[in-house]
Amino acid sequence: MSTSGAEQDGAGVRRGRRGTGGGAARRAERTAPRLEVARYIERNIPDFEILTPEAIEIIEANADTVLEEIGVNFVENPAALDRWREAGADVRGERVHIPRGLARELCKTAPSRYIQHARNPERSVEIGGKSLVLAPVYGPPFFRDRDRGRRYATMEDFNTFVKLGYMSKWLHHSGGTVCEPTDVPVNKRHLDMLYAHMSLSDKPYMGSVTAHERAADSVALSEILFGKEFVADNTVMTSLVNINSPLTFDGIMMGALETYAAANQAAIVSPFIVGGAMAPVSVAGTLTQVLAEVLAGVAYSQLIRKGAPVIFGAFVTSIDMNSGAPTFGTPEASKILWGAGQLARRMNLPFRSGGGLCGSKLPDAQAAYETANTLNAALLGGVNFMLHACGWLEGGLVSSPEKFVMDADQLGVLHSIASGIDISENGQAMDAIREVGPGGHYLGCAHTQANFKDAFWRTQLLDYKPFEQWSDEGGADTFELASRRVRRMLDEYVQPALDPAVDEELRDYIERRKAAEPDAFV
Amino acid sequence: MSTSGAEQDGAGVRRGRRGTGGGAARRAERTAPRLEVARYIERNIPDFEILTPEAIEIIEANADTVLEEIGVNFVENPAALDRWREAGADVRGERVHIPRGLARELCKTAPSRYIQHARNPERSVEIGGKSLVLAPVYGPPFFRDRDRGRRYATMEDFNTFVKLGYMSKWLHHSGGTVCEPTDVPVNKRHLDMLYAHMSLSDKPYMGSVTAHERAADSVALSEILFGKEFVADNTVMTSLVNINSPLTFDGIMMGALETYAAANQAAIVSPFIVGGAMAPVSVAGTLTQVLAEVLAGVAYSQLIRKGAPVIFGAFVTSIDMNSGAPTFGTPEASKILWGAGQLARRMNLPFRSGGGLCGSKLPDAQAAYETANTLNAALLGGVNFMLHACGWLEGGLVSSPEKFVMDADQLGVLHSIASGIDISENGQAMDAIREVGPGGHYLGCAHTQANFKDAFWRTQLLDYKPFEQWSDEGGADTFELASRRVRRMLDEYVQPALDPAVDEELRDYIERRKAAEPDAFV
Repeated sequence: MSTSGAEQDGAGVRRGRRGTGGGAARRAERTAPRLEVARYIERNIPDFEILTPEAIEIIEANADTVLEEIGVNFVENPAALDRWREAGADVRGERVHIPRGLARELCKTAPSRYIQHARNPERSVEIGGKSLVLAPVYGPPFFRDRDRGRRYATMEDFNTFVKLGYMSKWLHHSGGTVCEPTDVPVNKRHLDMLYAHMSLSDKPYMGSVTAHERAADSVALSEILFGKEFVADNTVMTSLVNINSPLTFDGIMMGALETYAAANQAAIVSPFIVGGAMAPVSVAGTLTQVLAEVLAGVAYSQLIRKGAPVIFGAFVTSIDMNSGAPTFGTPEASKILWGAGQLARRMNLPFRSGGGLCGSKLPDAQAAYETANTLNAALLGGVNFMLHACGWLEGGLVSSPEKFVMDADQLGVLHSIASGIDISENGQAMDAIREVGPGGHYLGCAHTQANFKDAFWRTQLLDYKPFEQWSDEGGADTFELASRRVRRMLDEYVQPALDPAVDEELRDYIERRKAAEPDAFV
Repeated sequence: MSTSGAEQDGAGVRRGRRGTGGGAARRAERTAPRLEVARYIERNIPDFEILTPEAIEIIEANADTVLEEIGVNFVENPAALDRWREAGADVRGERVHIPRGLARELCKTAPSRYIQHARNPERSVEIGGKSLVLAPVYGPPFFRDRDRGRRYATMEDFNTFVKLGYMSKWLHHSGGTVCEPTDVPVNKRHLDMLYAHMSLSDKPYMGSVTAHERAADSVALSEILFGKEFVADNTVMTSLVNINSPLTFDGIMMGALETYAAANQAAIVSPFIVGGAMAPVSVAGTLTQVLAEVLAGVAYSQLIRKGAPVIFGAFVTSIDMNSGAPTFGTPEASKILWGAGQLARRMNLPFRSGGGLCGSKLPDAQAAYETANTLNAALLGGVNFMLHACGWLEGGLVSSPEKFVMDADQLGVLHSIASGIDISENGQAMDAIREVGPGGHYLGCAHTQANFKDAFWRTQLLDYKPFEQWSDEGGADTFELASRRVRRMLDEYVQPALDPAVDEELRDYIERRKAAEPDAFV
């Protein structure tokens, strides 16, 4: 197990990499079209801060009160209770009461930013500070596309999303469970999912969290891909650890967190809240609970390994009081996102929230309003890691390829907004204003000629044609345009090169692990 | 012409009102269902400020350079040139060179906020400061709905939009040219449009700007509706005066501005810019031109009448460099909106920008992404008067009733975001967190019971039903749901009461004016 030494990319991201030895790989590399992939976003704009300093003080004090007086439950996890007792908490049964200030103190060893390495060093990302890393939808058991409608998702669908993600210019991360491949046994599908991310894409990916041993498999497979020594020293996975809100940390998720923290791999510690059900119906009350939960979860990660990278997560939506359904793109969700961002920055932690969330069953206007509301809120709220940035439909029950490419196109808008305003002499364009003068037009002027190619964000999907032309060509709506784009992208997909020796080793490991236990379907 | 004296509403808005004398009117008032209409928004959230103090300084200095060195054209308007000369500008031909600082100095007499009165005092709005007033689409010659497709708009369509606007809870303003009634002669349609706003709605409205004498008609009709003395002392119209960018003030628009300013009626002084064609392809360059144009236009309004209410307008979009079509909901448009908002606040002027702008031909996902991008940017950018807040389609060529109700529903989201975060004891919800504790749920707790009714924004349109139910009921998309809502609203519409004597006087005036000149269709 050797690495080919360290490489340096433009971002100053250092990583080791196994030699891409084989001739087949080199041939593939030569024939593959050069993909245009944007670097992760570095925000050159301010954060939108909705909480006043007084409001922050109240919420932080209340969160400490929650931890001390009410406490949090660490369920079916005696070792966790021992760790908390040792750290100075008052443990009664499974309830952990954390003295004021202790959790925040423990969180201080968590890094404010970290690099997650990709096997292609150009795709490595920095998470934290002013960065924004975009990752696709996570978790849906169903798949819906224009041609075939809604059905249970399969491994083939999973591969489709990984390919689309690999080809999406504005997507920095391959994600994790882009859909649940329900045709693969529950206890083995994590292996196929990881192999898809590792072999069909060269972007960074997430590990499995559904059992302690599946997290261990994720680490083992990553060690094959990156080299064992490299993984020991570097973060190559960011995985999603949900808190069982309110205030409960279950043994399964904590098992994954323990495995990843011990291996210096990153975890998003994320309250999962439908407001009104898992948190109070008020924004300030929900923020208090979110903060208390993240404080406890992040502090616990540092009890496992000081310095383990963690993200302040917040997946918060609100309930429709008529139907009981979760809602998305709502004003309450935006306010909570902005407030949570402020609380995360006060802790010097990277911040994660949702991206293209919506409740709609179809990629229609409802889906787009709700998605755009969430994307805009997340960009301005200082999110560092945006999960579900594209492809999410029907409250997270469905992954949709058309929604995937529709949202992925809008992610270009976020890049451009985040770049801020160019106030250089060229940006000021005084020569152009002088050249054109009152009543003229700028189409042909020197400044326009020199700048028009990169001046404006350009869609790869939306339609700007004149009505008559659009109508003559069939009058397609966005859903149809997206469906065509999905087909075109999949037609043009070329697998990124992977060292055949590494590939074989990955397959061997997976085969061995699959053979070791019987299939389970629940 | 007498007024029934001044009334005071909750907002401290004072207005006079003609007695609503007739028994018919009183009967109508008794039988009309009480409409739920939201008060205009008062933002309890910060503004998003993208320009640094240094960037503002540069742009302001450059705008002064533009005014002094390049100058602006006041076309076919010798009186305007005289006024500028007298104010100290260097006038050469139709070109007005304004010495550094003069325009900004002249702008200081414009009020930072003003009240626009509605005939129903509960619907009067304050424009400026932290307020946000929402008005519908303005200007499209075409109408498109789900049943009949796209065709030239008629006066019947116009009435449809005024009725929908009257019934829309989150819309504060009836607007102006909600569509062009192309079946009415060009030189007479302003009379029918004004009568529709005055009789079918009781919300504030806009006056005509397409000719000096049409602006005068708007004032005369308003004097009938409100009483002459009341109009002399109060603002009852806000009208849209576009600048012919770059840097050109044409005689027609200035004629309207002169009429309104002299009558103390408000005007939006608004550069109309497709970036890349009417302004440089850079954001900072466009902001410079916008500022120069607004400085000159607002200064000119104050040369007509010191203290005349005016709004810093900015209708700015960018061009698609492939097709030459204007684009909407783009990152450049958002950045310009935010920057322009900052420049407007530096001048202590109310700020206007677009609302639900989009380029899509259909009220589909493209329309909704673009619209939501614009609505969100405008809310956070501190807009005080949002024109085109609902109903806009196809780059402003089309008004759509379905898009109208879809957007109008989203305007509720803006209200709720703008309310900020309640940090009262009830908002903190500590009792709820204590009551529920780890692992519980909040659905039945005392705090939820007491607060759930008003806790969350509720859609009047979007679908949150479980998939199976939604599917069994036909699987309607948002376009179809909107179409149903339009029909329901029009079925339920009841005309607000209007004093029959006033109504007769309005009709007489219109009949007289229509008889006075032959029909013109261009």
